[in-house]
Amino acid sequence: MSSTQEASATDSPVKRPREEENGAAMETENGTGGGGGGEMIKEPSCMSSVIPGWFSEMSPMWPGEAHSLKVEKILFQGKSDYQDVIVFQSATYGKVLVLDGVIQLTERDECAYQEMITHLPLCSIPNPKKVLVIGGGDGGVLREVARHSSVEQIDICEIDKMVVDVSKQYFPKVAVGYKDPRVNLLIGDGVAFLKNAAEGTYDAVIVDSSDPIGPAKELFEKPFFESVNRALRPGGVVCTQAESLWLHMDIIEDIVSNCREIFKGSVNYAWTSVPTYPSGVIGFMLCSTEGPQVDFKKPVNPIDADESSIKSFGPLKFYNAEIHSAAFCLPSFAKKVIDSKAN
Amino acid sequence: MSSTQEASATDSPVKRPREEENGAAMETENGTGGGGGGEMIKEPSCMSSVIPGWFSEMSPMWPGEAHSLKVEKILFQGKSDYQDVIVFQSATYGKVLVLDGVIQLTERDECAYQEMITHLPLCSIPNPKKVLVIGGGDGGVLREVARHSSVEQIDICEIDKMVVDVSKQYFPKVAVGYKDPRVNLLIGDGVAFLKNAAEGTYDAVIVDSSDPIGPAKELFEKPFFESVNRALRPGGVVCTQAESLWLHMDIIEDIVSNCREIFKGSVNYAWTSVPTYPSGVIGFMLCSTEGPQVDFKKPVNPIDADESSIKSFGPLKFYNAEIHSAAFCLPSFAKKVIDSKAN
Repeated sequence: MSSTQEASATDSPVKRPREEENGAAMETENGTGGGGGGEMIKEPSCMSSVIPGWFSEMSPMWPGEAHSLKVEKILFQGKSDYQDVIVFQSATYGKVLVLDGVIQLTERDECAYQEMITHLPLCSIPNPKKVLVIGGGDGGVLREVARHSSVEQIDICEIDKMVVDVSKQYFPKVAVGYKDPRVNLLIGDGVAFLKNAAEGTYDAVIVDSSDPIGPAKELFEKPFFESVNRALRPGGVVCTQAESLWLHMDIIEDIVSNCREIFKGSVNYAWTSVPTYPSGVIGFMLCSTEGPQVDFKKPVNPIDADESSIKSFGPLKFYNAEIHSAAFCLPSFAKKVIDSKAN
Repeated sequence: MSSTQEASATDSPVKRPREEENGAAMETENGTGGGGGGEMIKEPSCMSSVIPGWFSEMSPMWPGEAHSLKVEKILFQGKSDYQDVIVFQSATYGKVLVLDGVIQLTERDECAYQEMITHLPLCSIPNPKKVLVIGGGDGGVLREVARHSSVEQIDICEIDKMVVDVSKQYFPKVAVGYKDPRVNLLIGDGVAFLKNAAEGTYDAVIVDSSDPIGPAKELFEKPFFESVNRALRPGGVVCTQAESLWLHMDIIEDIVSNCREIFKGSVNYAWTSVPTYPSGVIGFMLCSTEGPQVDFKKPVNPIDADESSIKSFGPLKFYNAEIHSAAFCLPSFAKKVIDSKAN
């Protein structure tokens, strides 16, 4: 999740008194920011307004609740053309990347999101060769795609160069994906990129987007899914970040309906545990185009024990074939709604 | 989860200034408490010290992070012989029960915990008749056990009467389990109760305990598991609350080792999503005694569509046979550790 998002940490009910606004935990290593041209402030507003010395994540996307992490040190804060970018060292979750007040990844649990959003689609088809990543500027999805030895070309279209630069500087184990020679990075708008992509190009498209309020909104709408469908080969697959079953069943219902209309292969919802995402889970919409049938629940292209991948990137921490299939088993309250909209 | 726990909300880094200590959100409906004999304070410390008007959950069990819920109104606060008991109306999670600063249940997500801790064991054996619940004073597990028409006797041993009374008053849809005529409530110590239970009595024991620091510690230790093993019939099953894979692998490793030594049938770990528990997940240890073999991953006793159960308690919201099997699929980092200790 690394495009633009509506922040709302400033919605916190009571501001912290002025006199408390400094302290060791708030020391900024890179006080002058990263070149995005925005004005720098000593403390990002989302840091100071809730628990002093802690980062609190609040949003109209999950009203009435907030997850907070203790901050050891702010390592970077900048304002790009698209969003506020913060990196901090947390007390217990390693380094944390925050865009517009929303946690994108922590070193402690990024494995779950990156491995699942990548291997759910790529392990569901034999021999993927051309893969497109929309968003995902941190490089974590690239790292996971690069584990697949069948892949020949990895295109990535990320709108915000600052996310790429910051990830390379502060999250080398995530951004390591950029070192793969098969990767072509394009800084630009994913919607426009897909509109212009040649028909039937990709075996798989992975949409590592932010939430559907603000500029990422288009990535959840019909015209975008139509472009994806067009850019995929027959029997090609798409996996897109699709929010939380606990928080956003209304959004999910709409996505499923849209996908059912557009993708004439299979349409499935999967989910997984990511502790630092709201409600502790994140979902994925997995669809295939008309053509050779794809049964997402039964992975045909194992990655678990690929030796050359382990050599380059270490062993997988989260994904395995069992958890792949399990990710499609939904709680009854969600199954009822999704089954009524999907196949 | 409803026994005693070590609170630590007072560990929050900075106290809120005195002058901010009132506001509509902090109004107490039941200002004189529930008869536990403790001294009443206007605001529980875990409420006021972090975000004004919000409840924040902090504990040495999950250092460096806190989940917070916006409080509409405090409905009850009391101090029993064992713990601080709070009920508040939250802005977006319904009513919330808090024991010693730790969220036990919210109306919005209690279904996941109660249904999974109950039906994972009871749907794994044919025809369960006698069931024992240790802890679980809120009555939610009783509600789920009562869905099983084969069950003839439901014993529950809860240490804290205040939890039972508060649940009956504020959570009627949870405490509804107490209305079942098969339920026998004993207020007392579960460890002592099990020591004195007749050998081979129960088909299933469900341990709905709090965390293993403080008085619930014994419920995670060998002598307790030995008592459970003794009280179960051959091929009987136990399901015990077993923390979070993301936060407590060390504790889980110990529990698995202990269970492996004691239970001569099968020993398995399952997990599920509960948004308001730390890291958004909770695990369960599922074991069977020597005797008829139990394969927990393949439920043999379906409950999904039991009509009389739906009549009394409404349809299941979370549990189904698919999610039962999926709960045993673990992420690689956990599978490695647990497989090395279990079967």
